[in-house]
Amino acid sequence: MSFNSFGRVFRFSTWGESHGPAIGAVVDGCPPGLELSEADIQPWLDKRRPGTSRFTTQRQEPDQVRILSGVFEGRTTGTPISLMIDNVDQRSKDYSEVALAYRPGHADYAYDAKYGFRDHRGGGRSSARETASRVAAGAVARLVIPEVRIRAYLIELGGDRIDPAAFDDAAIDENPFFCPDRAAAARWEAIVDDARKAGSSVGAVVECVAEGVPAGWGAPLYAKLDSELAAACMSINAVKGVEIGDGFAAARLTGETNADPMRPGNDGKPVFLANHAGGIAGGIATGQPVVVRIALKPTSSILTPVETIGRDGKAADIRTKGRHDPCVGIRAAPVLEAMVALVLADQKLLHRAQIG
Amino acid sequence: MSFNSFGRVFRFSTWGESHGPAIGAVVDGCPPGLELSEADIQPWLDKRRPGTSRFTTQRQEPDQVRILSGVFEGRTTGTPISLMIDNVDQRSKDYSEVALAYRPGHADYAYDAKYGFRDHRGGGRSSARETASRVAAGAVARLVIPEVRIRAYLIELGGDRIDPAAFDDAAIDENPFFCPDRAAAARWEAIVDDARKAGSSVGAVVECVAEGVPAGWGAPLYAKLDSELAAACMSINAVKGVEIGDGFAAARLTGETNADPMRPGNDGKPVFLANHAGGIAGGIATGQPVVVRIALKPTSSILTPVETIGRDGKAADIRTKGRHDPCVGIRAAPVLEAMVALVLADQKLLHRAQIG
Amino acid sequence: MSFNSFGRVFRFSTWGESHGPAIGAVVDGCPPGLELSEADIQPWLDKRRPGTSRFTTQRQEPDQVRILSGVFEGRTTGTPISLMIDNVDQRSKDYSEVALAYRPGHADYAYDAKYGFRDHRGGGRSSARETASRVAAGAVARLVIPEVRIRAYLIELGGDRIDPAAFDDAAIDENPFFCPDRAAAARWEAIVDDARKAGSSVGAVVECVAEGVPAGWGAPLYAKLDSELAAACMSINAVKGVEIGDGFAAARLTGETNADPMRPGNDGKPVFLANHAGGIAGGIATGQPVVVRIALKPTSSILTPVETIGRDGKAADIRTKGRHDPCVGIRAAPVLEAMVALVLADQKLLHRAQIG
Amino acid sequence: MSFNSFGRVFRFSTWGESHGPAIGAVVDGCPPGLELSEADIQPWLDKRRPGTSRFTTQRQEPDQVRILSGVFEGRTTGTPISLMIDNVDQRSKDYSEVALAYRPGHADYAYDAKYGFRDHRGGGRSSARETASRVAAGAVARLVIPEVRIRAYLIELGGDRIDPAAFDDAAIDENPFFCPDRAAAARWEAIVDDARKAGSSVGAVVECVAEGVPAGWGAPLYAKLDSELAAACMSINAVKGVEIGDGFAAARLTGETNADPMRPGNDGKPVFLANHAGGIAGGIATGQPVVVRIALKPTSSILTPVETIGRDGKAADIRTKGRHDPCVGIRAAPVLEAMVALVLADQKLLHRAQIG
Repeated sequence: MSFNSFGRVFRFSTWGESHGPAIGAVVDGCPPGLELSEADIQPWLDKRRPGTSRFTTQRQEPDQVRILSGVFEGRTTGTPISLMIDNVDQRSKDYSEVALAYRPGHADYAYDAKYGFRDHRGGGRSSARETASRVAAGAVARLVIPEVRIRAYLIELGGDRIDPAAFDDAAIDENPFFCPDRAAAARWEAIVDDARKAGSSVGAVVECVAEGVPAGWGAPLYAKLDSELAAACMSINAVKGVEIGDGFAAARLTGETNADPMRPGNDGKPVFLANHAGGIAGGIATGQPVVVRIALKPTSSILTPVETIGRDGKAADIRTKGRHDPCVGIRAAPVLEAMVALVLADQKLLHRAQIG
Repeated sequence: MSFNSFGRVFRFSTWGESHGPAIGAVVDGCPPGLELSEADIQPWLDKRRPGTSRFTTQRQEPDQVRILSGVFEGRTTGTPISLMIDNVDQRSKDYSEVALAYRPGHADYAYDAKYGFRDHRGGGRSSARETASRVAAGAVARLVIPEVRIRAYLIELGGDRIDPAAFDDAAIDENPFFCPDRAAAARWEAIVDDARKAGSSVGAVVECVAEGVPAGWGAPLYAKLDSELAAACMSINAVKGVEIGDGFAAARLTGETNADPMRPGNDGKPVFLANHAGGIAGGIATGQPVVVRIALKPTSSILTPVETIGRDGKAADIRTKGRHDPCVGIRAAPVLEAMVALVLADQKLLHRAQIG
Repeated sequence: MSFNSFGRVFRFSTWGESHGPAIGAVVDGCPPGLELSEADIQPWLDKRRPGTSRFTTQRQEPDQVRILSGVFEGRTTGTPISLMIDNVDQRSKDYSEVALAYRPGHADYAYDAKYGFRDHRGGGRSSARETASRVAAGAVARLVIPEVRIRAYLIELGGDRIDPAAFDDAAIDENPFFCPDRAAAARWEAIVDDARKAGSSVGAVVECVAEGVPAGWGAPLYAKLDSELAAACMSINAVKGVEIGDGFAAARLTGETNADPMRPGNDGKPVFLANHAGGIAGGIATGQPVVVRIALKPTSSILTPVETIGRDGKAADIRTKGRHDPCVGIRAAPVLEAMVALVLADQKLLHRAQIG
Repeated sequence: MSFNSFGRVFRFSTWGESHGPAIGAVVDGCPPGLELSEADIQPWLDKRRPGTSRFTTQRQEPDQVRILSGVFEGRTTGTPISLMIDNVDQRSKDYSEVALAYRPGHADYAYDAKYGFRDHRGGGRSSARETASRVAAGAVARLVIPEVRIRAYLIELGGDRIDPAAFDDAAIDENPFFCPDRAAAARWEAIVDDARKAGSSVGAVVECVAEGVPAGWGAPLYAKLDSELAAACMSINAVKGVEIGDGFAAARLTGETNADPMRPGNDGKPVFLANHAGGIAGGIATGQPVVVRIALKPTSSILTPVETIGRDGKAADIRTKGRHDPCVGIRAAPVLEAMVALVLADQKLLHRAQIG
């Protein structure tokens, strides 16, 4: 089944293919009276936009968003907000090989197995181009949760981890990798250059921290905050793993070392002495920073030939020409921020529905 | 908000607290005509049942399930199936300390922050006891997907990993740890014994493989098979990480090493030469085994005192007496199987809704 | 498909068959901290209970409700509230004819056509017995909307309309027909007696007024307050028509005669000079009383023989013995109140989700 | 809350305001492989299009639809289908009075009460212009249910009923009223002309018959076919009543006269001797024609002055200039057809999800 909507009361739906005339999102359930114009959305799209450095795909997309509904005299009306982004720089001819054979690791074969045929141009609906719609919707979500500050950055690229001691928030926007460690960012230039030259690709790990989430947001048991975040993260192209707080490392701790001890705070709220839990307990926010981490596989579309089969069932080798990110993880950082914002906006509204 | 339902067309809802009179699940959307009696459900509950070895909680719950609706003359009618399990062995007095102070790492504080008060007895709704309802619902889901074989087992406990070379499917049911490596199972006895004696607890990693999932099940873009699995997994108590296929390790591969090359097969279906993807591409099953892995933190309820605050906001130390699993990861294996079955049953029905 | 849940954030699910061991409802999304015990629910069930006069079915069901979860120390916890009612007085033997042939107008044939077989005992899932679960859930919904007063009553029975001039709110609870017109109630005794003696049945029209609904509840465009009410009403057994405000009579008015003119009120709210709209405009409450009206067909299960076919496809005549209401519309009044309460509780929570 | 989506597996969402740049719909869950182009949608839009006779609004909208996604090489791909219609002939200046005072019977006051402000231009989101999006989505739905023939027509206008004996299917498309009775159509010309000249408006009753719906579609208990139809119908602008089959008239029948007796048919399916039920029993289709009827109030926007209040709370009289349909019921016929198609497409897919 095709389910292109996400959220329960603050909801968004996306539509559009990589090489169709446009892509878009419809945001529904947004509170009325929020100031909103294209200028609130465009900067986030610009962060995700392709072609801004040699480390991302060279497809040139201005990604200019237009608001088609739901805003009157500069403010949201409470009705659906339709956002549209034209596709400008398609080169569908690059994909003739993809039409005939399946790229291993890509969605080509699975879509054919499901639907019987597919829009092969640029990956069609399965292209990461769809994530521009998410970033646009996420920009609206941010307006719903002004109390929250969301920040995503890469902590690993091509297997090379940052040094936590070198973490500098200011560095994140100074390099094309959203990397908080300047030394690592320098190393990563070479890693990505090498991968691109070799016709290969590399993976990445992206972390996102949301500060200011009030204790209480979240929802037992099947809309737990961490469960919603996991679904949102795993829906991003190329993601193969999700962690909350210490994630897999928590499995190696003991009850004592994993505990986040609490002490009385000055404002009636507790002070936590650690945050192994990543700000979520029992599916509900504790008031600590919410910490999410995702693993992205290397781009499946590579120039190096890979054994595959054709639509005719016969053996083939495939080299994916087109224009691809040598590391899809880089541009995933703004997408992850958007998805976290979308989940939190929904949970905020759900919280006040039940609690008032 | 409270959302205690899961699924889109094959759906289940659970209700009940650890120390209330009973817990239960309502399964809706089940196809008619399937043979179903309590005997189809009980064996799965017995696998999860507490008190069966010294490595799990000593609470003695027979966990006898009753079918209250949706079955007529031994077959499902297509109407909601109500499943109920009585709570028998509650000892609410053990929890007097929990009523007054928050167990770090547990849902106590978060529930209070959200709802203003909570049923503290045995963790109330946040108790892992709720997972019995999932296992019961999962047993029904299995009947919907007879083509699929689902198997979950622990691959790590207290930081000790199994040896993949020693993997023996037959071993899984021969030890109390659902451990496929006999040597590891022997080592784990000591690890859990030590943790229990020390008033501590340990974490675990559980893997689940679903074989026989046809290529095509799954749903772009926000009901992707991996996205639904991630949500389902992260909703299980104590889970802090989810991986599909190679998971976080995929971030360290290159495009070539991560590819799952394809060759023509004899039956018209491709043969895959690897399964880094864990059987899912673009959110849709490829026909390979679906591989999911979850990390569980160590039990938060431990005898060792931990710094905390009381409901009165004052500093306190808390020791959780009650009866707890020294490793919640062990009994999570049958729960993970149930959740995977529930997701796959839903996706099977969704697939035939759209494709016919 | 089977969809046994209703509502968006305040939701309920029902389960159970007429002749199974029990029926029940699970209410999810209820705000925490509301005082709730069986005593808050039982009076509403007693109003709907069968066997209280000679004008309803003689099945004797005490309809004692039990709360199995979601309440702690007398207050709702915000987690799912499981409500259960045992079936006591089944006489499945009465239904042997129904197993073999289809009652025209009843769900028998349609269920068989859909599911291939059915639980024929007492109508199984399609029995109006399920509405007891709604009444129980509705009692919880009432606690969520203390600002609203809901009142349902019959305005027509067997084609005999009440005299609006004789409307007396106090009369409604003084006769077995929930009839606000004492003279009509007296006439209706004979109508129902005659129908029962003739082995026949009669229809009814029930009206429900909800006072105190604040202007603003409701939801464009596909969760309009009137749209949700229409769905809720039409889901009640035997309902064939739904009206809001003037309903079908509005189609005979002109723009001027149908207008509800507004004048300034003392408290900043407008005073309306009429209520043709039934308190809803554009799917949103105007602050006037919400007026809903439903038409119920005569009971399909009658003693008079009707031409039909058997499960074997052969011609047959069917007389439905069992114990049936000669007018299902009577006991529909408390059910309609419950459904209106359930819709309004949901809309109240949705309103504060978006508006705060 | 704003809920602008409808359906469970075959779903559509609409967006857009009367005087914004465009309106649109996104259809999700559509089966793949269906032939679809703008030419399949345009004829249905043309039937609903304003300005085609003197009996509808004189706003000139070409209502040219564009397909922006979900179709590749002329066939649906199974991914979301984005449909867009530009707004061309807005005259927002006509609405200056509406900005300052509330039109009784219109959504103006309710929107302000809910959202605090509104897009007053042409009614904004509450305008019947939105129904063009439904008609476009409905055209896609029709492709999903080729076995069903749907036909809507007016049976009453301004209180003047057609003569059932004069019913002629061929007449429906020969007059601007979708009226199956030629003599009535002639009378209605005068009725609408008179209303328009008087600055007034009239109501209507529209009936819709869907032939070919297989026995079995539908869904107990809260997605009953009649319940879904009622919700769909009541969501249409100006609708105040919904009937299935005999509707309110059924309340005046007896069990015998309301029964639809069954006789054995030649093809194994029963022959029904009547269709009081309108093709639905227990919420499930019986295989007979599905019959739905809706009542539409007279247009609220009239030239005759009506007492009202302004946004400032002061008394005012309002005359609505703009360009309005003197009878909104006329153009509701194609909208009703679309909604019925959308419900049936969803129910068809749901049926095969559960039944296979």
